[in-house]
Amino acid sequence: MTPDGEDVRAADGVWFEPLAPGSFLNRSASVFGDRVAVIDGERRFTYGQLLDRSRRLAGALIEVGAGRGERVAVLAPNSHVLLEAHFGVPLSGSVLVALNTRLTAEEFAYILDHSEARVLVFDVEFAETARRACDIATTRPRLIEAGGEDDAYESALSSAQPTEVPVPDERAPLSINYTSGTTGKPKGVLYHHRGAYLQALAMAFHARLEAASVFLWTLPMFHCNGWCFPWAVTAAGGTHLCLRRLEPAAIWRLISTQGVTHFNAAPTVLTMLAYDANAHPVSHRIRVCTGGAPPSPTLLERMDALNIDITHLYGLTETFGPAAMCEWRPEWDELPLADRARIKSRQGVANVISAPLRVLDSDGADVPPDGATLGEIALRGNNVMAGYYRDAEATERATPKGWFRTGDIGVMHPDGYVELKDRAKDIIISGGENISTVEVEQALCSHPAVLEAAVIAIPDDRWGEVPAAYVTLKDDASASEADIIEHVRGRIAHFKAPKRVEFGPLPKTSTGKIQKFVLREAAWAGRDKRIV
Amino acid sequence: MTPDGEDVRAADGVWFEPLAPGSFLNRSASVFGDRVAVIDGERRFTYGQLLDRSRRLAGALIEVGAGRGERVAVLAPNSHVLLEAHFGVPLSGSVLVALNTRLTAEEFAYILDHSEARVLVFDVEFAETARRACDIATTRPRLIEAGGEDDAYESALSSAQPTEVPVPDERAPLSINYTSGTTGKPKGVLYHHRGAYLQALAMAFHARLEAASVFLWTLPMFHCNGWCFPWAVTAAGGTHLCLRRLEPAAIWRLISTQGVTHFNAAPTVLTMLAYDANAHPVSHRIRVCTGGAPPSPTLLERMDALNIDITHLYGLTETFGPAAMCEWRPEWDELPLADRARIKSRQGVANVISAPLRVLDSDGADVPPDGATLGEIALRGNNVMAGYYRDAEATERATPKGWFRTGDIGVMHPDGYVELKDRAKDIIISGGENISTVEVEQALCSHPAVLEAAVIAIPDDRWGEVPAAYVTLKDDASASEADIIEHVRGRIAHFKAPKRVEFGPLPKTSTGKIQKFVLREAAWAGRDKRIV
Repeated sequence: MTPDGEDVRAADGVWFEPLAPGSFLNRSASVFGDRVAVIDGERRFTYGQLLDRSRRLAGALIEVGAGRGERVAVLAPNSHVLLEAHFGVPLSGSVLVALNTRLTAEEFAYILDHSEARVLVFDVEFAETARRACDIATTRPRLIEAGGEDDAYESALSSAQPTEVPVPDERAPLSINYTSGTTGKPKGVLYHHRGAYLQALAMAFHARLEAASVFLWTLPMFHCNGWCFPWAVTAAGGTHLCLRRLEPAAIWRLISTQGVTHFNAAPTVLTMLAYDANAHPVSHRIRVCTGGAPPSPTLLERMDALNIDITHLYGLTETFGPAAMCEWRPEWDELPLADRARIKSRQGVANVISAPLRVLDSDGADVPPDGATLGEIALRGNNVMAGYYRDAEATERATPKGWFRTGDIGVMHPDGYVELKDRAKDIIISGGENISTVEVEQALCSHPAVLEAAVIAIPDDRWGEVPAAYVTLKDDASASEADIIEHVRGRIAHFKAPKRVEFGPLPKTSTGKIQKFVLREAAWAGRDKRIV
Repeated sequence: MTPDGEDVRAADGVWFEPLAPGSFLNRSASVFGDRVAVIDGERRFTYGQLLDRSRRLAGALIEVGAGRGERVAVLAPNSHVLLEAHFGVPLSGSVLVALNTRLTAEEFAYILDHSEARVLVFDVEFAETARRACDIATTRPRLIEAGGEDDAYESALSSAQPTEVPVPDERAPLSINYTSGTTGKPKGVLYHHRGAYLQALAMAFHARLEAASVFLWTLPMFHCNGWCFPWAVTAAGGTHLCLRRLEPAAIWRLISTQGVTHFNAAPTVLTMLAYDANAHPVSHRIRVCTGGAPPSPTLLERMDALNIDITHLYGLTETFGPAAMCEWRPEWDELPLADRARIKSRQGVANVISAPLRVLDSDGADVPPDGATLGEIALRGNNVMAGYYRDAEATERATPKGWFRTGDIGVMHPDGYVELKDRAKDIIISGGENISTVEVEQALCSHPAVLEAAVIAIPDDRWGEVPAAYVTLKDDASASEADIIEHVRGRIAHFKAPKRVEFGPLPKTSTGKIQKFVLREAAWAGRDKRIV
């Protein structure tokens, strides 16, 4: 439209191109075709090869029934397979469902059914669980096993027709990321191409990625699609250094031998690295983005001594990962460590493509920016999910008055930076992973001796926070702490099981509602925030 | 739309935000509110002030009749006024027309009329020309004079109501940049918000702008809206260092005293700087983007010695400035200077948000990527103009089969990098500014003694290339070279006048068409490209 309202649509085809993160691979394959895109153990693929393999994956997926709008699930560690899936699945026109590798077969089955996945690509490491999940599930996805002696994935790629289905609409679905929400069952967070494209650009910009970057995959790629870094690193033409297992010694070896310049990880992982026997100051500056919990002053000091620069990011699965960041001002470099650490622990401000964060009171009005008044953090913008997949009601509930409510409780500082003070009441973030307290409570209550149960987060030196259970047993019934934990571990992923169980009556309101805040107050006594 | 086609529009308001470069100022005002955004001589404005002033400018413009879809022209050097206009004009809902300060009153009048500008903001430095232009023009814009003793601009801002008109549609018009096209009259290149937003992000990313950046405004802001750097520098929260005049001594002083980290300039300007008496190696690395002509090996060597890193960009007014860049590979750093210079002289590849460049033969097919076959460079994507303002026919002509034809002649190298070999036949780029040969020819032919004339570019040590005229006089008429040049200077901007005039018959085809290539071959003999 011209200022006069005159239509210039004749030229529309020239100047409108859907925003889709797959375009970054096309560009890097053309510009950096013979540069190394992926290192995964002994395997190396150039950008030319990564594009070719992704196109072949698209062809192979279509051959077995995937295609426009179908879902393709992938169960793999941070390997070249999962990275290729971030390009190949969209190239087939399908929607990527990257599975959290720590879940149980029952949980995988639920997601396969809910997403009606047509294909499940899995790494040989997870073969048993994958097959068991498919036995449980109603959906019957076609299986493609990657790795092992008889590598079906590689065979499929070799024989496939390289394919590229155009993106019809930049707001079309790109991926579904299942998350433990505040209800027991995982919810499918729907990402669109436009959001991932913009978020990837923001990450490339803020992390200062470039062609010389070597990005180590410590952050799970299944986690919010790796905060969109599969696309961000590719946009910059950097090298993806895959990492199948979080072993500190291996990470330190890769840092030394491969010239790692960037990685992302929760503070718990950073702490593990900082105090590993192999830890040593790095000869070049490494940029690390962290999130899920604020980095502690001790950790920041230790990392700085190792020549590792920490940026604190904040976001949720619903916001394509980090929608906010503790944007650093050059003048803060001069402050004493304690002050720097205090500032850096704040979740901060919108990233360059995000809309401004708000902190809302119970009436939906902004709290005063006094650094003291608590409110709920709310977001909107191009990097907020299109909705929960097949759950219009939950989508509506999560986004009252056009703002996505994070459930996180925080304050707005006078300088416009947000700081979290408490988690959403029903979410625990342990080592960077979400745990739904409701889900754990349901698993607890399925024990025949349990009358009722409440789960809260308690502080933990290693994981930041972990679930603790408060349980009332039925009259005349008995069960030990170990019994209860074992029971839960048989039903949901191990990392979700309570680390501690206390028995006794639960504190309740006069109307009989469990008062979790009473439990939390006791567990977090002496701390000014209820997050670690 | 979900994979099932289920509509999730309930959440649309949450996750869709129009892409508009003005949002970068809102973010920086919130994040970096008290940091210095603008330095213009003795004046300094923080990001908070820049937003406030831009909102006031919007209010002031609406008071004098601007508003949704109206055009506001600005005639100013690279001052805080022109920078504020890049935010304030869109905030009023109006469309910015930044005028090339080197044009004549007649040319300004044409643009004011063609754009039907409702308001003309002008710097006191251009008061006389501005008033004369308004006398000539049919349109009667409201005038706002900036600077001088009785600073109407500042008064208007002081009394204005801060205003912010929301962007209705990301593809709505943002600005019109008048360019000398291949016809005599300037064409209005229409920019939309979406394109400028994405181009600004690409520039911020590639130039590695950050909050600590100090960007010196050597590139005219009227030139493709300063390659979208008014928005890019603001997105990064860097400091805009205004510069009213290209004086090498002043530039070197600012580099030393203000800690300049970035600037953009044509190679002619860089050469001027490199050989200035004040030139000295800078204590920190400076990143410079250049364009309009390839930087010479001598210049690159000299700049490197001064600790200035050069990135070569390529684009046109029609592509929001640099749609392409000579993307640098880390491994090239090791090459000998001659090889680095040869590679760096290439116009390169699409920037991170551009669609891939093509080089097309006369049938519209891609030429082979052999580094030898000539073709026309063609572009499409989000950073291609919405069209020529009020010239649907020219828009159609410029974009056959959905590709914008640059008119530039080049080759595609085997590694996917494009290299220009010749200019569009009717465009001369002299010191970074476009000159239409047709326009100069028309001015020549208006001389009573001239029968016919042809203008081509000839190489020039200072300006890269300059216009030269080949003129046939009427029978019995006479005129000297000086007469002819003087005549042209009386009609069009001085920089467009031919630097040399040769008299005699013009080479023609059998059907009477002037064979400019014969003139060019003689003028460029012994060079392998026809651009400098």
